Amino acid sequence: MGEAGFLDAIAWNEAGLAPAIVQDAQSGEVLMLAWMSRESLARTLEMGEAVYFSRSRGALWHKGETSGHFQKIREIRLDCDGDALLLKVEQVGGIACHTGRPRCFFNRLDNGSWIITEGEGEGRLSDPSLFRKGD
Amino acid sequence: MGEAGFLDAIAWNEAGLAPAIVQDAQSGEVLMLAWMSRESLARTLEMGEAVYFSRSRGALWHKGETSGHFQKIREIRLDCDGDALLLKVEQVGGIACHTGRPRCFFNRLDNGSWIITEGEGEGRLSDPSLFRKGD
Repeated sequence: MGEAGFLDAIAWNEAGLAPAIVQDAQSGEVLMLAWMSRESLARTLEMGEAVYFSRSRGALWHKGETSGHFQKIREIRLDCDGDALLLKVEQVGGIACHTGRPRCFFNRLDNGSWIITEGEGEGRLSDPSLFRKGD
Repeated sequence: MGEAGFLDAIAWNEAGLAPAIVQDAQSGEVLMLAWMSRESLARTLEMGEAVYFSRSRGALWHKGETSGHFQKIREIRLDCDGDALLLKVEQVGGIACHTGRPRCFFNRLDNGSWIITEGEGEGRLSDPSLFRKGD
């Protein structure tokens, strides 16, 4: 295995991407789902901070580059099929979502409708206009 | 919104699917990543147990149907973009992975290589020959 052998072990999809689940290393809360390319994962390791592939912008996306809400990598895992990643991170600023919330999964299915959960430390901590979508 | 309004709120991908992160409702451990279609999510709600869409088989997949390792739904969440689901489940039998392990993310990146983590309650609890891949 060469230097990039661990990248070859990943079953990238037809677009060259794999989904990355992002989990708070301390609390265990799932923060967000993002996508990674070979290059973004390689950069993530180099920097020690999460670098994703933005499908909407078609470019690498160093999470936090405009918001300051970087994700420091604590652990990276791969699943049994090699087609999904799990990143355990330290979320700088405690805000993972571009809406200003701690995490992206704030819609809870309740009796057939999606309810925005604002309680339990799930509400907005920051003004979303301060950073761009996807950051 | 009609009965299926909550399904319309999801940004299904070009294949009609959305990734579903599956998390143990008690421990917070991420168990696996699966894919859902409209029909699989509707069936999940009806049954109260996870029903996914198997991309390899191109068919609905009632998780546990051959292994008995069903996933009882405790909560369903949707992310800010509406294109990723988070399921909090009770994992029957404590085994989510078709390899017989508690969870699918047993490969940990360690100094440029994927290491299978067998310690910390992560080893095989069951003979994987007992159930088919993806179950």
